Amino acid sequence: MRLVVVGGVAAGLSAASRARRVDPSLEIVVLEKGSRISYGACGLPYFIEGSVRTIGELEVYTPEFFERERNVRIRTNAEVVSLRHAQREVVLGSGERVRYDTLVWAAGARPTWRSNDPRVFHLHTDVDAARLDDHLRAQKPATAAVLGGGYIGLEMATALRARGLVVSLYSEAPHFLHWDSPWLTAMVRARLERARVEVHMGAAVRDAAALRQDIVLAATGLTPNVEVPREAGCEVGRSGALAVTDRMETSVRGIFAAGDCCETNHIVSSRPVWIPLGTTANKMGRVAGANAAGRRERFEGIVGTSIVRVAGLAVATAGFSESQARREGFQPVAAKIEARERPKYFRGRPLTVELVADRSTGRLVGAAIAGDDGALARINTVAAALTARMKVEQLASLDLAYAPPYSPVMDPLLVAAGQLLKAL
Amino acid sequence: MRLVVVGGVAAGLSAASRARRVDPSLEIVVLEKGSRISYGACGLPYFIEGSVRTIGELEVYTPEFFERERNVRIRTNAEVVSLRHAQREVVLGSGERVRYDTLVWAAGARPTWRSNDPRVFHLHTDVDAARLDDHLRAQKPATAAVLGGGYIGLEMATALRARGLVVSLYSEAPHFLHWDSPWLTAMVRARLERARVEVHMGAAVRDAAALRQDIVLAATGLTPNVEVPREAGCEVGRSGALAVTDRMETSVRGIFAAGDCCETNHIVSSRPVWIPLGTTANKMGRVAGANAAGRRERFEGIVGTSIVRVAGLAVATAGFSESQARREGFQPVAAKIEARERPKYFRGRPLTVELVADRSTGRLVGAAIAGDDGALARINTVAAALTARMKVEQLASLDLAYAPPYSPVMDPLLVAAGQLLKAL
Repeated sequence: MRLVVVGGVAAGLSAASRARRVDPSLEIVVLEKGSRISYGACGLPYFIEGSVRTIGELEVYTPEFFERERNVRIRTNAEVVSLRHAQREVVLGSGERVRYDTLVWAAGARPTWRSNDPRVFHLHTDVDAARLDDHLRAQKPATAAVLGGGYIGLEMATALRARGLVVSLYSEAPHFLHWDSPWLTAMVRARLERARVEVHMGAAVRDAAALRQDIVLAATGLTPNVEVPREAGCEVGRSGALAVTDRMETSVRGIFAAGDCCETNHIVSSRPVWIPLGTTANKMGRVAGANAAGRRERFEGIVGTSIVRVAGLAVATAGFSESQARREGFQPVAAKIEARERPKYFRGRPLTVELVADRSTGRLVGAAIAGDDGALARINTVAAALTARMKVEQLASLDLAYAPPYSPVMDPLLVAAGQLLKAL
Repeated sequence: MRLVVVGGVAAGLSAASRARRVDPSLEIVVLEKGSRISYGACGLPYFIEGSVRTIGELEVYTPEFFERERNVRIRTNAEVVSLRHAQREVVLGSGERVRYDTLVWAAGARPTWRSNDPRVFHLHTDVDAARLDDHLRAQKPATAAVLGGGYIGLEMATALRARGLVVSLYSEAPHFLHWDSPWLTAMVRARLERARVEVHMGAAVRDAAALRQDIVLAATGLTPNVEVPREAGCEVGRSGALAVTDRMETSVRGIFAAGDCCETNHIVSSRPVWIPLGTTANKMGRVAGANAAGRRERFEGIVGTSIVRVAGLAVATAGFSESQARREGFQPVAAKIEARERPKYFRGRPLTVELVADRSTGRLVGAAIAGDDGALARINTVAAALTARMKVEQLASLDLAYAPPYSPVMDPLLVAAGQLLKAL
């Protein structure tokens, strides 16, 4: 039996590793179109910023490691251009055919914005990052336009400032990070402007030629790599990404999918969503790999948790904003509080917490948190609460840890939940 | 209608405030035996350490604030010595009687260890802390014995080191913080010793006269203040603290109780426990106050969450250790991992996570986490998971937040849950 995994970054290698543990006798081949596997792509902005010295530092495993330690064959520079499922074979760009019994499609996504303008850069792969870094060193551009108000756009605006460039950020959406709360938009904008990033909201840039900056960093969103499996009959969901079951199987039996190319279940709405993130890709990959190797496992889904550092501000969200919740059919009620991460006498920095609940059920449906390092504790507690479909009442009396060096006696999350209870 | 609240620190004032909000017409009187109300007693070790400059900084509200803003009468230096429930009156030390319709008993607890030796100090109240601080300033003692391996003992060992004393710690139990994991005991001990605290485990000190140190800080545990309500017929649980319903009512109708004097439900075992902590006291107080004022609210209980800083190490626990879980009737399985709070390239410090599950149900039943500030995020996520009675399987695929400045791509909690899943 041979398992072929298409894609060797997050989901693909998680699938291969898991399949190996489930079935030591399985033949496993990973086909990766790039030349590097298993690197932490989320660290690339920090390579540009300078916190990470080399892209190599982001590499978790080498192909040799996989071959030697996990008995997984890794083929780099091997792009799959078509999929002949009746024959159970994939066709590579070279024309070579690779036979499989089961397939895991984990080919990821690609930047939607494409341009031939040599001033345009992306930050999607290690190759993108190396090209940008080389350019920054060799050409010493003075000005940059960053397109996109998602997490890559925000991280790159700060990273390019750290490299000394004059930076302008253009966001097509009137808000950042897909979170349409005016207070959060204003807070992020103020932070960027304090870091001397010029901010243009609701500014769609269709053509790099319209921009005068020396370089353009395009981070306007991704398109899932679904063309090949779609041609082979795999269904695509409303989001444009591959539809999968909770076993991570596509609509074509024997073809599994995982990672940025496919949808997953949103636990809060119980609807399929497409939110491409490395953490989710790893989890999907493990389940896809287990099932492809003959186990029966399921992936329950996500709650849309994210955290990003914007010019020193931690911005964390999970679930739905008030207006997203309304679009999802909830009756949202929100409460926002300002508190401190720790007692004042422990130099507690400000933390803003907004919680959103559904009036008809009393359930928590979302949260946005902005502040310092303490945002992590609160958003992860929210993620657990959303996964457990917790009511605000229960959240408000959670037994959270307290000691002055770490938190105030009334955790900001409990204060916010208490406020929200009054509004429900 | 008059509500009398006995005790004006955490539980008592929460009860009074909540009762006021529920019923604006209620007459509310708080009787506090000390002279100060509403101070953050958990900050006292940090006052001794020097992080907090004055005890006044720990004061949250003054009596005047409660009188003026909340229309709550505060009487300090008013100790209740008996309770005549048939007459609905309490008797003060002065002989004065105070009538009530409903009563909230929130008289807290007191240090169990008592001694007339002038070298012996406690750190239970503001008065204790002031006395110790005065003594340290005036007498400049050179050596201290700290009795007790609970959180006050550990915090005080470090605090007295910070004040320049030579410190020896004596713990009657063979472990710290009621958590009997050898690895945690060893790790805490090593930290203390690195901070040059001499550690004696399993060392019961019955008499201060046996100790040669200049001062003795006794933090060997508390006794709940239940004598007065017990004489009035209120039932005491097996722990020695007052038994209460989930509405925070004692066995005597019309007498509610909250805070360090009473038991609460442990959500993991569904059994009453007595774990006196300020955070729990506040929550109990709110529910007691609401019910005393005529609402119907319930307090679900606690999961035993705590965090403490020991010579720079964050030690956080929740639920049950492996051997505690066994004593509670679970079939415990544990897994321990060592990870980093953040990626190495963001100077991630080590974090150890031990999770305990019940084999028969697959449910998480406890966790111990030791490391740096990142311990908070993980223990609070565990607290939410325990409250939701989450299975390890669900915990292992929680959608936790990831960005390199805040966490590694695989959160240590997910890594530990993955390990535990293999063992289940």
